[in-house]
This record gives sequence, C-alpha cells and structure tokens, in this order.
Amino acid sequence: MARPTPLSGFPEWLPDGRVVEQHVLEVLRHTFELHGFAGIETRAVEPLDQLLRKGETSKEVYVLRRLQDEDGDQARGDQRPDKQLGLHFDLTVPFARYVLENAGRLAFPFKRYQIQKVWRGERPQDGRFREFVQADIDVVGAGELPYHYEVELPLVMAEALGALRDVGVPEVRILVNNRKVAEGFYRGLGLDDVEGVLRQVDKLDKIGPDAVAELLQAEQGATPEQAKACLELAGISGADTGVIDRVRALAGSYGAGTDLLETGLAELGALVEAAARRAPGVVVADLKIARGLDYYTGSVYETVLVGHEQLGSICSGGRYDTLASDGKNTYPGVGLSIGVSRLVSRLLSAGLVTATRGVPTAVLVAVADEEHRAQSDAVAAALRSRGIPVDVAPAAAKFGKQIKFADRRGIPFVWFPGQAGEDDVVGPDQVKDIRSGEQKDADASVWTPPEQDLRPRVVPAGE
Amino acid sequence: MARPTPLSGFPEWLPDGRVVEQHVLEVLRHTFELHGFAGIETRAVEPLDQLLRKGETSKEVYVLRRLQDEDGDQARGDQRPDKQLGLHFDLTVPFARYVLENAGRLAFPFKRYQIQKVWRGERPQDGRFREFVQADIDVVGAGELPYHYEVELPLVMAEALGALRDVGVPEVRILVNNRKVAEGFYRGLGLDDVEGVLRQVDKLDKIGPDAVAELLQAEQGATPEQAKACLELAGISGADTGVIDRVRALAGSYGAGTDLLETGLAELGALVEAAARRAPGVVVADLKIARGLDYYTGSVYETVLVGHEQLGSICSGGRYDTLASDGKNTYPGVGLSIGVSRLVSRLLSAGLVTATRGVPTAVLVAVADEEHRAQSDAVAAALRSRGIPVDVAPAAAKFGKQIKFADRRGIPFVWFPGQAGEDDVVGPDQVKDIRSGEQKDADASVWTPPEQDLRPRVVPAGE
Repeated sequence: MARPTPLSGFPEWLPDGRVVEQHVLEVLRHTFELHGFAGIETRAVEPLDQLLRKGETSKEVYVLRRLQDEDGDQARGDQRPDKQLGLHFDLTVPFARYVLENAGRLAFPFKRYQIQKVWRGERPQDGRFREFVQADIDVVGAGELPYHYEVELPLVMAEALGALRDVGVPEVRILVNNRKVAEGFYRGLGLDDVEGVLRQVDKLDKIGPDAVAELLQAEQGATPEQAKACLELAGISGADTGVIDRVRALAGSYGAGTDLLETGLAELGALVEAAARRAPGVVVADLKIARGLDYYTGSVYETVLVGHEQLGSICSGGRYDTLASDGKNTYPGVGLSIGVSRLVSRLLSAGLVTATRGVPTAVLVAVADEEHRAQSDAVAAALRSRGIPVDVAPAAAKFGKQIKFADRRGIPFVWFPGQAGEDDVVGPDQVKDIRSGEQKDADASVWTPPEQDLRPRVVPAGE
Repeated sequence: MARPTPLSGFPEWLPDGRVVEQHVLEVLRHTFELHGFAGIETRAVEPLDQLLRKGETSKEVYVLRRLQDEDGDQARGDQRPDKQLGLHFDLTVPFARYVLENAGRLAFPFKRYQIQKVWRGERPQDGRFREFVQADIDVVGAGELPYHYEVELPLVMAEALGALRDVGVPEVRILVNNRKVAEGFYRGLGLDDVEGVLRQVDKLDKIGPDAVAELLQAEQGATPEQAKACLELAGISGADTGVIDRVRALAGSYGAGTDLLETGLAELGALVEAAARRAPGVVVADLKIARGLDYYTGSVYETVLVGHEQLGSICSGGRYDTLASDGKNTYPGVGLSIGVSRLVSRLLSAGLVTATRGVPTAVLVAVADEEHRAQSDAVAAALRSRGIPVDVAPAAAKFGKQIKFADRRGIPFVWFPGQAGEDDVVGPDQVKDIRSGEQKDADASVWTPPEQDLRPRVVPAGE
C-alpha cells in the first residue's frame, strides 16, 4: 500500500495527543461519577427511521450497508427506513431509545453519562468533524422531571470543565436561555411560528442583525417592529437577575407579556441566581441562545471557551419534554453534551496543553546481552508488581543506544541490572535519571520513581 | 415511537453490566500500560479498498453512504472502493495503516494498545456480534522485530486476563502454534498449498478429522498418507517442550523434516519454555491452531476460557511480517486481540461476575423540603470535594420514600442534613447505613464511607 494520508474530518491523535484526550475523558468521567451519573454505552447504530425523526439532521446521517447485500437483501426491499441502519449523530437520540427500551429495568430519575463517538456527514472544517467524541450527561424522569435539574446539570459541566483548568484548558462561559422566555415573548408579540423565529435568530452570529431582521420579515412574516423586538430580546445578556428585569421591561414596552414568558423568566432567574452562588462568573444569561434542535422545551445551554469563542460551542444542550415517549409514557429530560474532539483538537492545535510523554513507561530496563534478557524481564516484573510502568529494551544494543531509546520516548529512568556488569561480575542494580544523568544503586523490590514521573502527566504547554 | 426492541448482534448493557465491562477494560488497560504500551485510537472508518485487501473478510464489511449523497456523489462515481468508506472489522488493519501514515513521527519498536468497537456484518449468534469491543496490543518494528516479542505478548495477555480472576473470570488457556512449523511440515510432506491446508485444518473442531481428511484429498490434492500426517500433527499438544520432540519425531517418520520446520520448532520451544517459567499452566502448544487470516507468518495464538471452550477463542492473534508495508519500508509486528464483548457477555449471561451496584453513588443526601434543597446541595458538595460520589434526592418526598430511592439503586448510605430536623431545629447531620439500619451523627467535612462502599465493586457472582 502507498503511504496513506489522513481522511479529512476524521481526526486521530499521535500517542501524546491521546494522553491529553484520555486525561480529559478521565476528568470528565470522574466528575460525572461524583455527581451520581451512571455510565452507559449504546450501540453505534440506530434504525434509520429513528435517526430521521429530526428532519434537520437527516442530511448528516451515514447509512450502513452490508457489502454482501449489494445484490441481495437490498434489492429485495431492505431499503425501508425501519430496516436500514445508520450511525448515530449524537448521544441524545440513542439515549432516549435506550430509556424506552429498558424503562422497566431502570430507576427514575435516571442519571447517566455516556462518552462515545458520533458521526455526521457534514463538510469538515475547523472544529467540525465527521467522526468525533461526545461526553454527555442527562437525567430523565418518568412522567415528570423537577426543574432543579435544569440548574444542576450545567453546574456539573461547569465543574467538569473547571477541573481541567489546571492542565491549561481555558476558562469557560456557559450561556443559558429558556425556550419559554423566547416562545412567550414571540407569542406576546403576535409571532406564532416560534420555531421559525428561533431558526432565524440562531443565525445572528453568522449573518448579523440586519440580515436576520430581513429574514424574519421575509420568511416569518414579521413586521419591522416585531423583527426589531426580536433583535432587542436577543441583545440582552448578563450574569445576574437584572437580566430578568430587562426582559420583562422590554416585553412590557411592546405589550408582549404572557404567562409563558413569566414562567420562563422565573426559571431563568432561578438558574442565574443559583449559578452565581455555586459557580460565580461561569453562567451568563444570553437571550440570543436559540439552539437549532426543535425538541428543547425549557432551558437551553451553549458553552464557549474564553478566548476561543470563534470555535463555537463546546458544550450544549437543554431541557426536552417529548423526546422519549412510547405513546403511553413520557420521559422528560435535561442534558448537555461536551464536544470532546472539538475541545481536544483546539487544546492540541493551539498548543495550550501538552503531555510530558507519549508512553506510559516510567522505566526502561536495559539488556546487556540477549542471554541475560530473562534477568531484565525479572527486574521489569518486580517493578510492575508495584504499579510502575516498565519497558524492556528491544535489543541488547550498546547502552548509549538503549538510553537514546528511552530519551526519544521521554522515559525518565533507565535501569541497569547488576548482571549487566562487565566481566559478568554481579554488582548491585543501578538506575539512571537520564534527564539529570544521576545514577545510583537501586533494588527493584523497593525503588519507586518520584510520583510526578510515575505516569505521563498532562500540563499547560510551556510549563 | 413504539417501545423499541433490541437489535440482534448489537449488545448493550444495563448500568450494572456496564460497571462490569468498565472494570474489565480498566484492568486490561492498566496491565497494558504497566508493560509500556501506549494507548491510541483510530477512526472507525477505512477506505473500502484497504478493508477488502483480505478477501475472506469482505463479506463482513459495513459500507457507509451519506444519506444526502443518494442521488448525488454516488451517482457521479463515488462508488469506487478507494473513495468509499467502510467500518473497520478489526483493529489490526487500521493500526497497520496508522503506522504507515505516522511512521515518521513514531518511535520503533512501537508498542500500542487500542480498545475500540469494531463491526462485522456476520450472522449474529452466541458470542458473535455485529458490533463489539476489542482490546488489542501490538508491537511493530521498523524493518525488523526480534522474536522475543512473540514470547512476551501472549504473556502480557495472560497477565491481563489473570488479573481478572479475582472478580470471577475463569482461568484461561492460551493455545499457541507457529506457522513455520505447519508450513515446514506440510512442505516437507510435499504439500505446497500451505494456506489451503491450513484452511482445512482450521475446520477440525467444526467438522471433525474424517471430513478434514476428505477435504485435504479432494481440495488440496493430498494423498491419504499426507492427509493422515496433517491430522497427526494437528493432534499434538502439550505444555512443555516434549511437544517439540514429538513433532520432530512425527516429521522424521514421514521424512518431512525441513529447515523451516526446525526454525519454527526452535521458536515454539522458546515460547513454551518461557511461558512455563513466567506463567505456569497458562500456555499450551497446540499444533492444530491455524488461524484463518493469511497474514500470520510466525507464532499464532488462541485463548479459551476454561469451562467455556465452546464459546470459542476470546483472545487471538499472531506474528505478521507484511501487513504494514508501503513498498519501501516494512513494519513486521505481533499482536493479540481480546474479544471484550464476547467475554463480558459470557460473564454476565452465565452469572459469573456481578457489580455491587449500577450507580457510582455512595451517598444519597435527603431533602427535607424544597426550601432546604440548597443545604442538601452544600452537603453533597462537601462530600464530593473529598472524592465521594453523591446524589441528592430528586424531590422532598417522605424520608421513607427517599430511603427507598437509595435502596433501589444499591446506594449504601442516606444522609440527613441537620437542618432537616423537625420544628426547624438545627441538629447535627446524620448518616444512615440503610443495609444495617445504623444511623449516627456525621460531619460532611470529615465523614468517609468504608473503602469497600466508596465505589461499585465488581465481584464473583454469589459472593
């Protein structure tokens, strides 16, 4: 095979990049578990008809076909959407299906985290991949779900992302809004195509306010005054409950107050207030946050990396009431999803975060000659039995070459078994810190590397 | 949506099953890292032409198609195998591609582990899935790879699987053979279609010796005497180097000794000898092990769970010399792959292993009334800050109901904030072990659950 080239949109990391990604995933998982979320995985595929329930995403779905079916099953009618399988494009739709499928065996409210790859056949660009890892948390109730979870879930994400600050991940800002506020306000204005209006407002960052105002008039039949009011609402943001008063005042000035608006404002206010207390400075109410997906019914969330806002949201989600329903029972939920690949890709490409080495190995055991390999293996086994990651030199090359082997990989210590002494004299084992050059006698049954050298660490780049 | 049903061949676990799977994966990963293997992930897709290089597997490949391409790109010729993408069916082919793609940025010999899902469009049956998790280790060299890795890699797997014994995973037996032995012997007999003979011998367990003898004669043109010799070779097995002598004697009796056979026997003997020393009783030379894949060139391995032999191999692999080659450079390797889903599925379905609970949560903090939820949240935060997984009751129901919430999930402790006392009297916090009923005063800044209750544990079922 000729030397292969990368596939655009399908990111892969070198071993040291994978160390960074693994660290991010472990910190996320640890935080999720501290908050009582149970880990699950779902299969990568769903029936195509389920994936297509959300019209907007259909163009992104990858459909699967068994190669051997080419002239077989497919021709015989297996093209029906309920028989075909597609790769999931998020973890929310599969989770909703999992909940319905296992409802009788789960305890509600059910809190789960899920860290898996998803696939979208979009055009690849900076921060947008065709295959990427998401880390989701959701809680779903049976029949009902108390509002307080809409406050707690973004705070869990704030804590998870905050726990990555010390390895060099920038500060995050979680932008929150509430669908009831938007819907109540639009309906109060007399605009009843709420989803249509949201879809236009969602384009604000991309095309600017003038173009959105035009679209609102052209597509949603808004008057110039209604369009202006929508843009004014979208212009409101702030980290304290003063935001609530400003929305209320704006609605009043247009005579657009509704009960739904008041419900939404009470919820949004409670979220902003709790967040200001529990994670000061992290959560900001931003009334232009719309979220494209139409299944959200309450709080919605987006998250930016401070200083990297143009990357787009790295953690989004919201409250949904009708996503998981089997007709008889409904399982309302709220959740957020971190775009791990988008985050890690930026951490690596912007040189924000680095791994101290790309191998787990703390010690390389040298081999004096192939006849004594078994002794090096025994040293390695003794060190490993105490949890120290060890490799044994691949060949009994000159010691300088073996040290270079360690150096190339960032392995900090090289161990010389005593049996490796010249003239076959059995001396004590020695271990060399190849960074300082310091070499001293050591006993494989007790020697331990300094804690910071035991495993690769993830640190701010340049540290 | 109607209540969905499982998709045959696409296994999913309930949360407590996932705890078992996670534990298995963590033990494997820990062992691999102790031995200096670096973790990588590759994308799930490869160009179809790369996946089809091994003819045997082509019928199993899932091909991807972007839904929006239906009448677009595909019709314009994107059906070419080098443009189409398929899901990988193992982790060896993607790893070989990763090595070639990144050869200039990797240090050789390169040891990596890789734990990911793979997909095969086979007919699902017990232990055979269409989507499953594999855990692979491989080491590849640039140009050359010393034989000792063929000894070490199965021993790493023996250690990894052995580390699972104490949670209830049965003993394993690693069956080893060497392609050079088989090839040398067959050629010595005068049978030159070595791959053909191997393919027939590989059917021994399925169709029995008589049928294999017939096939050898009908398909490979063997004489009855040659067929008999092949079956006699396949009948040899044993855990010590006596096996080597028996093969040599058999070859001698047929006048089938060759240099290649001797090379293979020396390798196989070294493996059996080292294994008997380093992992007594685990490795058995079994001359009938053939492995279907034709890229193996030296040692080959299969692994059975003792008492569950009919499940088939749960960990297989071998030495390959030409899998990764860009024409100019070749990267010979050796590796093994654990079928994690097959193993976990058996552990769960046979009731061998169980998790003490399906949630990470060690403590449920009760909520006396919604006005005091913030105090329960504060208790939870204090406990979490010391690494204790905590959940807060979803609603301020009667305490009996909140205790039942914990009980249903296997959460061992329920915490009652002092503020929850009757008549709003602020007493000390109390924590109740709901298994024993014992309840005592506790301080959220210092109290810690017993180590064995901190996280869900994986234990032999029935313990």
